[in-house]
Amino acid sequence: MSREDTTRRILEAKTARGLKWFQVADKIGLSKEWVTAGCLGQMTFDAEQAGMICEIFGLPEEDRLWLQTPPHKGSLSTGAPSDPLIYRFYELVSVYGITLKELIHEEFGDGIMSAIDFKMELSRESDPHGDRVNISMSGKFLPYKTY
Amino acid sequence: MSREDTTRRILEAKTARGLKWFQVADKIGLSKEWVTAGCLGQMTFDAEQAGMICEIFGLPEEDRLWLQTPPHKGSLSTGAPSDPLIYRFYELVSVYGITLKELIHEEFGDGIMSAIDFKMELSRESDPHGDRVNISMSGKFLPYKTY
Amino acid sequence: MSREDTTRRILEAKTARGLKWFQVADKIGLSKEWVTAGCLGQMTFDAEQAGMICEIFGLPEEDRLWLQTPPHKGSLSTGAPSDPLIYRFYELVSVYGITLKELIHEEFGDGIMSAIDFKMELSRESDPHGDRVNISMSGKFLPYKTY
Amino acid sequence: MSREDTTRRILEAKTARGLKWFQVADKIGLSKEWVTAGCLGQMTFDAEQAGMICEIFGLPEEDRLWLQTPPHKGSLSTGAPSDPLIYRFYELVSVYGITLKELIHEEFGDGIMSAIDFKMELSRESDPHGDRVNISMSGKFLPYKTY
Amino acid sequence: MSREDTTRRILEAKTARGLKWFQVADKIGLSKEWVTAGCLGQMTFDAEQAGMICEIFGLPEEDRLWLQTPPHKGSLSTGAPSDPLIYRFYELVSVYGITLKELIHEEFGDGIMSAIDFKMELSRESDPHGDRVNISMSGKFLPYKTY
Amino acid sequence: MSREDTTRRILEAKTARGLKWFQVADKIGLSKEWVTAGCLGQMTFDAEQAGMICEIFGLPEEDRLWLQTPPHKGSLSTGAPSDPLIYRFYELVSVYGITLKELIHEEFGDGIMSAIDFKMELSRESDPHGDRVNISMSGKFLPYKTY
Amino acid sequence: MSREDTTRRILEAKTARGLKWFQVADKIGLSKEWVTAGCLGQMTFDAEQAGMICEIFGLPEEDRLWLQTPPHKGSLSTGAPSDPLIYRFYELVSVYGITLKELIHEEFGDGIMSAIDFKMELSRESDPHGDRVNISMSGKFLPYKTY
Amino acid sequence: MSREDTTRRILEAKTARGLKWFQVADKIGLSKEWVTAGCLGQMTFDAEQAGMICEIFGLPEEDRLWLQTPPHKGSLSTGAPSDPLIYRFYELVSVYGITLKELIHEEFGDGIMSAIDFKMELSRESDPHGDRVNISMSGKFLPYKTY
Amino acid sequence: MSREDTTRRILEAKTARGLKWFQVADKIGLSKEWVTAGCLGQMTFDAEQAGMICEIFGLPEEDRLWLQTPPHKGSLSTGAPSDPLIYRFYELVSVYGITLKELIHEEFGDGIMSAIDFKMELSRESDPHGDRVNISMSGKFLPYKTY
Amino acid sequence: MSREDTTRRILEAKTARGLKWFQVADKIGLSKEWVTAGCLGQMTFDAEQAGMICEIFGLPEEDRLWLQTPPHKGSLSTGAPSDPLIYRFYELVSVYGITLKELIHEEFGDGIMSAIDFKMELSRESDPHGDRVNISMSGKFLPYKTY
Repeated sequence: MSREDTTRRILEAKTARGLKWFQVADKIGLSKEWVTAGCLGQMTFDAEQAGMICEIFGLPEEDRLWLQTPPHKGSLSTGAPSDPLIYRFYELVSVYGITLKELIHEEFGDGIMSAIDFKMELSRESDPHGDRVNISMSGKFLPYKTY
Repeated sequence: MSREDTTRRILEAKTARGLKWFQVADKIGLSKEWVTAGCLGQMTFDAEQAGMICEIFGLPEEDRLWLQTPPHKGSLSTGAPSDPLIYRFYELVSVYGITLKELIHEEFGDGIMSAIDFKMELSRESDPHGDRVNISMSGKFLPYKTY
Repeated sequence: MSREDTTRRILEAKTARGLKWFQVADKIGLSKEWVTAGCLGQMTFDAEQAGMICEIFGLPEEDRLWLQTPPHKGSLSTGAPSDPLIYRFYELVSVYGITLKELIHEEFGDGIMSAIDFKMELSRESDPHGDRVNISMSGKFLPYKTY
Repeated sequence: MSREDTTRRILEAKTARGLKWFQVADKIGLSKEWVTAGCLGQMTFDAEQAGMICEIFGLPEEDRLWLQTPPHKGSLSTGAPSDPLIYRFYELVSVYGITLKELIHEEFGDGIMSAIDFKMELSRESDPHGDRVNISMSGKFLPYKTY
Repeated sequence: MSREDTTRRILEAKTARGLKWFQVADKIGLSKEWVTAGCLGQMTFDAEQAGMICEIFGLPEEDRLWLQTPPHKGSLSTGAPSDPLIYRFYELVSVYGITLKELIHEEFGDGIMSAIDFKMELSRESDPHGDRVNISMSGKFLPYKTY
Repeated sequence: MSREDTTRRILEAKTARGLKWFQVADKIGLSKEWVTAGCLGQMTFDAEQAGMICEIFGLPEEDRLWLQTPPHKGSLSTGAPSDPLIYRFYELVSVYGITLKELIHEEFGDGIMSAIDFKMELSRESDPHGDRVNISMSGKFLPYKTY
Repeated sequence: MSREDTTRRILEAKTARGLKWFQVADKIGLSKEWVTAGCLGQMTFDAEQAGMICEIFGLPEEDRLWLQTPPHKGSLSTGAPSDPLIYRFYELVSVYGITLKELIHEEFGDGIMSAIDFKMELSRESDPHGDRVNISMSGKFLPYKTY
Repeated sequence: MSREDTTRRILEAKTARGLKWFQVADKIGLSKEWVTAGCLGQMTFDAEQAGMICEIFGLPEEDRLWLQTPPHKGSLSTGAPSDPLIYRFYELVSVYGITLKELIHEEFGDGIMSAIDFKMELSRESDPHGDRVNISMSGKFLPYKTY
Repeated sequence: MSREDTTRRILEAKTARGLKWFQVADKIGLSKEWVTAGCLGQMTFDAEQAGMICEIFGLPEEDRLWLQTPPHKGSLSTGAPSDPLIYRFYELVSVYGITLKELIHEEFGDGIMSAIDFKMELSRESDPHGDRVNISMSGKFLPYKTY
Repeated sequence: MSREDTTRRILEAKTARGLKWFQVADKIGLSKEWVTAGCLGQMTFDAEQAGMICEIFGLPEEDRLWLQTPPHKGSLSTGAPSDPLIYRFYELVSVYGITLKELIHEEFGDGIMSAIDFKMELSRESDPHGDRVNISMSGKFLPYKTY
């Protein structure tokens, strides 16, 4: 029994029950982005949220505790991801990473965009040439300070 | 003489002349995101743009041709980047990649968000708890089709 | 229970029942290339196709749902593949990749050949010096655009 | 002085003289695919061809000898290529490699498609939804034999 | 059930029954080199051979089908093998690989020695300073051709 | 000045003077396999041999000393080699390595074939279906002993 | 000319002039930890600090600009560092990393210790059994927040 | 049954019983840092400590022996860790590793800080701008000596 | 059932029965170094030795055959080992490997120290400043010979 | 100018002057093992020793300072070394590493053999079956202690 088992059980129940992530998020009352990440073992739920997740997916009691335990995060163990959809985001970091570095330093000075004090939203934009995936990200700027 | 030399000469001239990327972009009349990526050897300029770049940075004649040649792109040769700012974006792919995969498939079906028919914009958001880096991305959805 | 289990069950049933991929494709009414890729966990079937696949291979009910779920794609987790047949294709990318890059840029300008809006066909060509494997690929050209 | 230097000199001269690969191939009287691969250090020219290459690009005498020496081939030293165009071909091997293996074995039995006794052709297909890159490959089937 | 299971069952039965590879090869009527490679999941047997293998090792019925299915070949997933005996062969490629390349090109021109149209034989040579392992390999030369 | 420079100078002189490896070996009075490996920086010459090598290739005085210094050997720094000819030998280790292990242990018991007390010979075999590369290797068997 | 050149020039001048890092830090008026990291190309100086650094080490004018440009940071390009002193810190992350994760989560909940809003101090502790290296680190806790 | 099983059972029992690491450490009478590392399979307990651990977590008898057996330590099998919290410590080694090397050599001469004769303590510092994680490390300096 | 299972059973029995390696070696009548390596799956026992090992550890019958089968050796699948004790030996190869190469070549000429015709002994040396681990190794020198 | 340049100059002078490492060590009055390691950039000399090294090899003044600066140590940047002589030592760690771990823990308890408080000696042992390389190592045992 581990958090990986909880994630696997959620994915199986989601397929078996035909649930959508946005429906789960609506019941929890949070964004679909954060709730999906949490269900996939990347975020930590509080006691009430964990109870609702267990109810929605029909999970056993022990999963309620695992969902409240900070998980071992990250899915890129080594290098480039093989899945084409995930790879495109890796490619964006590869092609645009140095550009983001230059522009953030130009605007803010030396520091980084936080990946912890961070939120994002994904939406669909209708377009006659083919609909588009829009993603907006917002992360706090953290400056390096002298000491 | 190669495109890497052109990039190096641009960075040296930018430092020596105290230029800002947004000023370069303004002169070219395009977004700062695309122009910076192009100057860093990730995009291809047309003849007129290449001429302006050469003038702004005081580049030799041969660079005008290199700037019009599609470069070998990408800066992540293997695995995780060491620079903390760029790593945070890699971490976002690691932590949120599977979430993006789930949500795009839920909304659009099987396919990917294009990293080619793509644009992005970076801006600063004032915030009393510390200013934030906002990034909005837009990529065309490309479906897998049966045949 | 996961998509990997479904793939394994298909391969076992195919061996046990002595089925050929082209026969499966004929029953579904699509190309053998796409159907084989789908059965191997690289493409997503719709409800009707998934039902036919389950019937042909005698799969349990849950596999019908998994076959309709976009899978985690890609089989090259790191570097060069060890299987000699698959390696030859990797070697073609290694030997001819830069040539393809030069020729596509020469003909189309900066951009890529899509691996999503893509189809391919494999056929046998009789040849007195030894029969040949012919593969024709067709992918949409996607240009980088300024913004 | 090495074959890598020859390749670099060819690329610089091609940019400086504004030559196209198909023009070079036309003068040599061979396919643009093979000639481009040869100029990029992946194939070996005979004495006459090497002389023509030197003349077209204005190369020094020693390059004529290097062009006739079998080069150290291959451009993928480790794992996935970073350039988006070349990566798409790597992804095709990743996504379709096991499909190609299954279909070749189904049609021909155990063996491989040769990457040496091999030719390919790249062409443009007009399409109202966006032009397509067409690539046709032909490689001799080589069976494993018992002994 | 998979080809890996078949290989494991063969190794267990070989140990339990005290069989030698050359005895298995004698019964099949082929070389010990090819038969051992086949039993270890690197070659494909025909129906009659597969039946004999199953009888010799007491394998279940399904293994007869797997033995006739081209396996996923190769045992070096990444880099250097850890086993000292296998590593010595890897070291020979490391130390003598460029020599073999020079000498084959000198004798045959540009091309390769086939690893598919290939056979080898291992034998013992008595020597008062310590017996020697003799290995003779024979592979068809495959030339690169212009097109 | 280092052994790598010596190797580079030998390769340049060999190309410029149109020498063949077997001619160099004939002059030294040793096998072409050993002499080529030595010239490529994998073996150590004695004083007389080093002098002859310097004369044949017209090398400067300091190379005579480097040729007598045991070099840092091996050309496979990490994993699989990209050159198709060298890769075929790597593939043979991958496909046949476990077979060689089984057969050597069956014949000799636990131990290895030495890659140091080792010699090899490469020759051409005429064959109406295409000439073949024949390679014979001989290495002393070294047993593990208890102590 | 690049930041790496600046770092190299600093190291050469430090050796040639016999300077100590704590002396440099004292002149700048900041901690030796931050100043050393900055001189080694990991932090960014302001105009006044950069001027002092140039004076102390006798650097050319262009280095004053590079010292004010955020550098590409990080010195562990891949995996474990080879230097024994640096490796010990890597080993501490390997042995104690999961412990730090457990204890930080126990005390603070889900989140991380910032490596940006961070400071550290290194000092010597006299000890009759052998002096000790004491390092104290302080990083802001950054919680993951729901959204 | 192995030490990994013991660690897993401890983690499951800790979650099920709602225990805190500092409570476990208090009962053992040692620091929370060392006890947590030991429970996670990085340190070795003596007989009495092992008995107490078994009692606290309700472990079976065999775990008492495993807890007294020096474990295979280290959790970073290759390169950078994916978990964001643990990665931050890896980044500190990447960014500050060469600084620590310089400062330790400046203060102590050539040698290392021991990661064995080592202790550390983690505590919370209240801060109006956000609480901080404080970590103090102490390791014996080990000099290289001539011989 | 495989040699890995045998090793695991030995380790479990050793822990459960409280056996010491030197006691096992004494009963077999060989060195503790060789016997421990053999029990850990790195050496091959003869029939009599295998019988004694099975009796000492209470192993099932099939293990007697596995212990007589040359195992797949080596425990460093890729790169540096994570365990601190084993890493120190890897570090010694990293720091002293080129020194050993220089000194062996200086004394013996070109060749290697055999890792097969090899023995070693580990002992404790009392020392008032802390006891020392003494390891003496002896390997036959194998010269490269011309041919 | 860096420590790597110093090492290169030492190796060139040693070859040009025909010096032996043991002669250098005799002049310095220390062991050949430590002096060779120091000359190869793995140890740090004091002022007097550095002066003698410079005199023996005829090095320029700046090398005297570099020889007194603790170098970046270690020569195995990633994984297995390619040189056969050095690889044999890597293989010994691979084959015997877990044995050394078991025996050191059995004799000393949990801890490591220091690679810093360490010395070694290499000597030749005459043997009618072929001379042997003898290496004796001595490292202080460092225990893990509770805190």
